[in-house]
Amino acid sequence: MTDILPDARNLAFELYEVLDAEALTRRERFAEHNRETFDAAINTARNIAEKYFLPHNRKSDEHEPQYVDGAAELIPDVKPAVDAFLEAGFLNATRTFEQGGMQLPTLLSQACFTQFQAANIATSSYCMLTMGAANLIENFGNEEQKQRFLQPMIEGRFFGTMALTEPHAGSSLSDIRTRAEPADDGSYRLKGNKIFISAGDHPLSDNIVHMVLAKLPDAPPGVKGISLFIVPKFLVNDDGSLGERNDVTLAGLFHKMGWRGTTSTALNFGDNGNCVAYLVGKPHQGLNYMFRMMNEARIGVGMGAVMLGNAGYKYSLDYARNRPQGRLPDGKDPSSAQVSIVEHTDVKRMLLTQKAYVEGGYDLGLYAARLFDDTETLETEEQRKTALELLDLLTPIVKAWPSDYCLKANELAIQILGGHGYTREYPVEQYYRDNRLNPIHEGTNGIQSLDLLGRKVAMNNGAALKQLSGLIQNTCSRASEFESLNALREPLEKLHAHIGKVTLALLGEMGQGKVNQALANSALYLNAFGHMVIGWRWLEQAIRAEEGLARGNAVDSDFYRGKLQAARYFLTWEVPGCHHALTVLENRDATCLDMQDSWF
Amino acid sequence: MTDILPDARNLAFELYEVLDAEALTRRERFAEHNRETFDAAINTARNIAEKYFLPHNRKSDEHEPQYVDGAAELIPDVKPAVDAFLEAGFLNATRTFEQGGMQLPTLLSQACFTQFQAANIATSSYCMLTMGAANLIENFGNEEQKQRFLQPMIEGRFFGTMALTEPHAGSSLSDIRTRAEPADDGSYRLKGNKIFISAGDHPLSDNIVHMVLAKLPDAPPGVKGISLFIVPKFLVNDDGSLGERNDVTLAGLFHKMGWRGTTSTALNFGDNGNCVAYLVGKPHQGLNYMFRMMNEARIGVGMGAVMLGNAGYKYSLDYARNRPQGRLPDGKDPSSAQVSIVEHTDVKRMLLTQKAYVEGGYDLGLYAARLFDDTETLETEEQRKTALELLDLLTPIVKAWPSDYCLKANELAIQILGGHGYTREYPVEQYYRDNRLNPIHEGTNGIQSLDLLGRKVAMNNGAALKQLSGLIQNTCSRASEFESLNALREPLEKLHAHIGKVTLALLGEMGQGKVNQALANSALYLNAFGHMVIGWRWLEQAIRAEEGLARGNAVDSDFYRGKLQAARYFLTWEVPGCHHALTVLENRDATCLDMQDSWF
Repeated sequence: MTDILPDARNLAFELYEVLDAEALTRRERFAEHNRETFDAAINTARNIAEKYFLPHNRKSDEHEPQYVDGAAELIPDVKPAVDAFLEAGFLNATRTFEQGGMQLPTLLSQACFTQFQAANIATSSYCMLTMGAANLIENFGNEEQKQRFLQPMIEGRFFGTMALTEPHAGSSLSDIRTRAEPADDGSYRLKGNKIFISAGDHPLSDNIVHMVLAKLPDAPPGVKGISLFIVPKFLVNDDGSLGERNDVTLAGLFHKMGWRGTTSTALNFGDNGNCVAYLVGKPHQGLNYMFRMMNEARIGVGMGAVMLGNAGYKYSLDYARNRPQGRLPDGKDPSSAQVSIVEHTDVKRMLLTQKAYVEGGYDLGLYAARLFDDTETLETEEQRKTALELLDLLTPIVKAWPSDYCLKANELAIQILGGHGYTREYPVEQYYRDNRLNPIHEGTNGIQSLDLLGRKVAMNNGAALKQLSGLIQNTCSRASEFESLNALREPLEKLHAHIGKVTLALLGEMGQGKVNQALANSALYLNAFGHMVIGWRWLEQAIRAEEGLARGNAVDSDFYRGKLQAARYFLTWEVPGCHHALTVLENRDATCLDMQDSWF
Repeated sequence: MTDILPDARNLAFELYEVLDAEALTRRERFAEHNRETFDAAINTARNIAEKYFLPHNRKSDEHEPQYVDGAAELIPDVKPAVDAFLEAGFLNATRTFEQGGMQLPTLLSQACFTQFQAANIATSSYCMLTMGAANLIENFGNEEQKQRFLQPMIEGRFFGTMALTEPHAGSSLSDIRTRAEPADDGSYRLKGNKIFISAGDHPLSDNIVHMVLAKLPDAPPGVKGISLFIVPKFLVNDDGSLGERNDVTLAGLFHKMGWRGTTSTALNFGDNGNCVAYLVGKPHQGLNYMFRMMNEARIGVGMGAVMLGNAGYKYSLDYARNRPQGRLPDGKDPSSAQVSIVEHTDVKRMLLTQKAYVEGGYDLGLYAARLFDDTETLETEEQRKTALELLDLLTPIVKAWPSDYCLKANELAIQILGGHGYTREYPVEQYYRDNRLNPIHEGTNGIQSLDLLGRKVAMNNGAALKQLSGLIQNTCSRASEFESLNALREPLEKLHAHIGKVTLALLGEMGQGKVNQALANSALYLNAFGHMVIGWRWLEQAIRAEEGLARGNAVDSDFYRGKLQAARYFLTWEVPGCHHALTVLENRDATCLDMQDSWF
C-alpha cells in the first residue's frame, strides 16, 4: 500500500534543518522537551493515524453521514479513531502539563496533526473543530464557562463547532440575523438558523458545544454588533452532569462533493423559543474573538490542503514508478521494453510540480506554526507583537495558496493515473474532491485576497510587509553565497521588487479613496504575493539543501538533490510567470471592474 | 430553472456573423439548405435536448449503470432520449438525403450536437460513439460490412464502440496484445482484453458493434502491426436478423468520478475461443484508419468540454445575479441593502474568465467543424488538402485547450456558488466531475502536446503552421482598422512572433536529433500555442462585435459589448502571460528532463 502520510525525512528536514525546532526547547515553556520527545510525539501521531484514521478514509466517502430521526449517524469507524486521538492527548498537545496537556510548541502540534489530516481529513475535522472551540472558551470565556464547558472538552467528553454562516449571508457576517435576547437568569435565548456547520451533529461525544455568532437587541449594525455565545446541545448542570436537551435542532445535512465523512449541518436555534445561550466575553466583541482565533484555524485549513495534495503526490509518484507504458521519444523501437512512466519528461513535470506545491506549502504552514509559537513565547512583548504582525500578514497566504495550488496538485495526480485516476477504484479523485472545499471555507480565497491587500499589507504603516521584505532579503543574501543558487535567487529578487512597487501604487490609490479600483484585481495580487512567499520558502529550503549536500552524507544526497530541483522548478518556472499579472495590477486594469451585468 | 444550453444569440453570432455558415449553402452538397433549415435543425435539437436529455442528467449521476448478470443496466430515462435523437435524424445529420440523412454541413451537425452534450454529456455519448463507429465502417469497410453492420447503425438499431485501450498499455497502442487468428471462413477469431470501453454494454440497441484494434499473427511490431476489426455483440445472419451471441463478454464496469451515465466497461474477447471478428480494410492499417477519424472525434471531445464549461458558466451567472451578499469596498454601510454578488469585481472576474474560455472554445470548435466541411466540399483537391492540413494542426488544440480551460471554468463556477457549489444540491460540482475526463480520454493532453510539437507543426515543411500564421496575420491586419482593438491585437502579434521563433528553435533541435530535449517541455508549448489560437479567435470575434456595434442595432449592443470585454480579458490578461513559458522552451530548460526518479 502506498504510504501517503507526510514523508518522515522531509519533516525532519523542516523541523531540524530549516526551522530549528530544537531552539524552541531553550524557551521556558518548552524546556522539558528535546528532539527525542518531539520525534516521539510525531511517531505516536503517525502510528495512530495509520492504524485508526487511514483505513476508513474511503469508507467515509462512500458512506456519508445519514440523517435519522433528527440526528446524524456516522459509520462506526470514526469513534475509535477520535477516541485514540483523544487518548493519546493530541487534543491538548499545546496545553500545559498542569492542564493535562503535552506542553508542545504549536510547530510540533501542527506537525503531529498533519498526520491525521493526511490519513483522513474528514475524521480529523471533528478533532480540529473541537480544538478551535475549546481555544475560544479558554481565551475569552469566564471561569464558570471554562469549568462547565472547556474542562469536559479537554477531557474529550464534549466536542465543539463554530457556527457563523447563515443562509442569506454566507460570507457577509455583518448581515447575520440570529438574535440573542437576555433572560432573567443572566443567560440568553437564541433564535436563528445556521448552515454549513461542520460537525454540527454526530454521536462521537456526550455533548456538543456550539460557538455561535448572534446579535443582541441593542447591537449596532454590521460586524460591530456581533456577539459570541456558547450554545450546548445538552444543558449542563452545576455538578457537571448533563441536563435536558437544549432547543437546537438538526434541520438537515448537506451532501457534499467530498470531505463527506464530516457532517455539514443546518442547525435551527430556538424553534421552540427556548434555546439557552451563554455570552462569551463582552457584548459585540464576537467577531474580534473569532478573528483572534483565525490565524490558527487558517493554518489548519492550509495544512489540510497540503496534506491532501501530499496524498495525491505520493500516490501518483508510486503509480508512476510502477506503471510501465510507452518509450522515450528517441527510443521508439516497439520491441524494446516499455519504460515506467516516471521516465517520461511530462510525467516528471507533473510530479515535480506537485512536489514544489506540496513541500512549499508544507514548509510555509510549519513556518507559520513556529511563528505562532513566537507570538506566545518570545521574550519581550515587542518581539511577540512583531511576530504576530508577520503572522497576520502571512495568514491569508497560508490559507489560500495551498488551497489553490495543492488542489492543482491533485488534478495532476489524477492526470498521471490517466483513466484509472478518473475511477473511484483509485483514491486520487477523492483527494481532489476533498480538497475542493479548502478554497471555499474559512473565508473564500477571494476574501483572503481582500484581507491581504485591503488590510494586512497596509496595517501599522506596512510594518509587517517591511518585516517580510527584510526576511526575504536576508534569505537572498545568504543564498548569494552559493553560486549554484544564483539562477534561483534572481527571479525571487525581481518578483520581490516588482511586488513592492505595485503595492505602493495600490496603497496610494486607496489613500486617494479609490478603494474599488485599488482592490479590483486583488485575486492577482494574492496569487503573486503567494508565489513570492513560497518562492522565498523554497530558496530557504534550497540553502539548507546545499548545506546538507556540503556535509556530504551520501544517503541524503538524493533527498537534497530533489529539494534543489523542486526549488529550481518553482523559482525558474513559476515565480517569473507572475510579472504580467503585476503589470495588470500596476495599470489599475479595469477590465473586470468595468464589466456590466447586462453584458454577460 | 437556469438555461444551461448554448446561448442562441451567441450561436447565431458564430454561424452567421463569424463563420458565414450561409456561404456553405453555395456548395453543391449543401445547396438544398439555407439559414432557415439550419435554424430549424438547431431548434429541433434544442427541444429534444431540453425535453429528453436534460431532465435525467443528475439522475444518471446518482444512479450509475449497474452490472447485473453479465450485462449493464441503465436508468430507464436514457433510452427514450437516444430514441428521440435517432427519430429526429441527428445520428445521420451529415449523411446524404439518399442515405436517409439530413445532408447538413458538419458545422451545423456539431452545433446541433452541442445541444445534447450540454444537456447530458453521458447520454449523448452513446450517440457520439455510434456515429464514430459508423463513420469508420462507412469509410473503410467493404460493401458487405456496410450492409450488415453500417445500415442497422444508420437505422439506429445497432450502436457502436471504439475498443482500443488494454490494461497493460493505456496510451501505448503499439503494445496492445489482442490477437486475431484467421478462421477458415475468411473471418477472424479474437483473443484479448480491453478496458475503459465507453458504451461497451447497455440495453439501448439490438446489437453493439465494437470497432476493435488487434494484431494479426504476422503483424510487424508496434503501431504498424495493428489491424481494425468489427466485433458484433450478436452475430448477424445473412438476412440481417440477429444470430447467436458472440464470444465477447462484459467483465465489469468502472466506477468513475463523473460522466457516470455512460458505461465504462472491461470487455473480454474470446474467453471461450470463439470471438468472431471481421477485418476492416487492409491488414496492419488499423491505426491509420482510427487516426483518420480522430479529427472529428477530437472536435467532439473539445466541444463536450466546452458545453460542460458553458453549463457551469450559465449556472453560476444566474446564481450571481440572484444571490445578494455583502457590499462593495467603498460602500460598507451595514444598514444598506446587500448587493448581488455579480456586482463584486472578483465575481465578475470569475464570470468573465469563464465566458472567455467557454465562448473562445466554442468558436474554435465550430471553426474546426467548418474546416472539416472544407476538407470535404471545397472545390479542388488542393484546397481540400490545404484545409485538412490546417485541421490536422489545430486538432490537438481543439481537443486539449477546452478540456484544460473549460475545466478551470467549472472550478470557477463552484467557487462562485461557494459552500453551495460544493454540495450535490447544486449541479456545478457534477459539471466539474464530468469534465475531468476530457483532458484524459481520446489521447491525454500530454499526448496532444507531443502530437502538436513532435508531428503537426513540422509536417510538410511547416505548411500548416505557415497557413495558420497567414490567417492570424490577416485577422490582425483587419483588426488594425479599428483603433479600439489595438490593445487587443498587439498582444496577439507579440505572442505569434514569439511562438514562431520558439518553434524554429525547437524544430532545429529536433533536426539535430535531440528529440528528448526538444520535446521535453511540450506541455508548455501546447498551452502557449493554444492561447495564441484562442486569442486569434477572440480577436476575430472582437472584429465582428465592432462591426455589429457599428450597425447600431440597440438590442444587440449589450451582447457585442460583452464580446469585446471577454476578448479584452483574454487578450490582455491571459495572452501576454504566456511569454515566460516560451522563454523556458527557448532555453531548452532541462529542469524536468534532468529530474531523477531517485530524487523524488
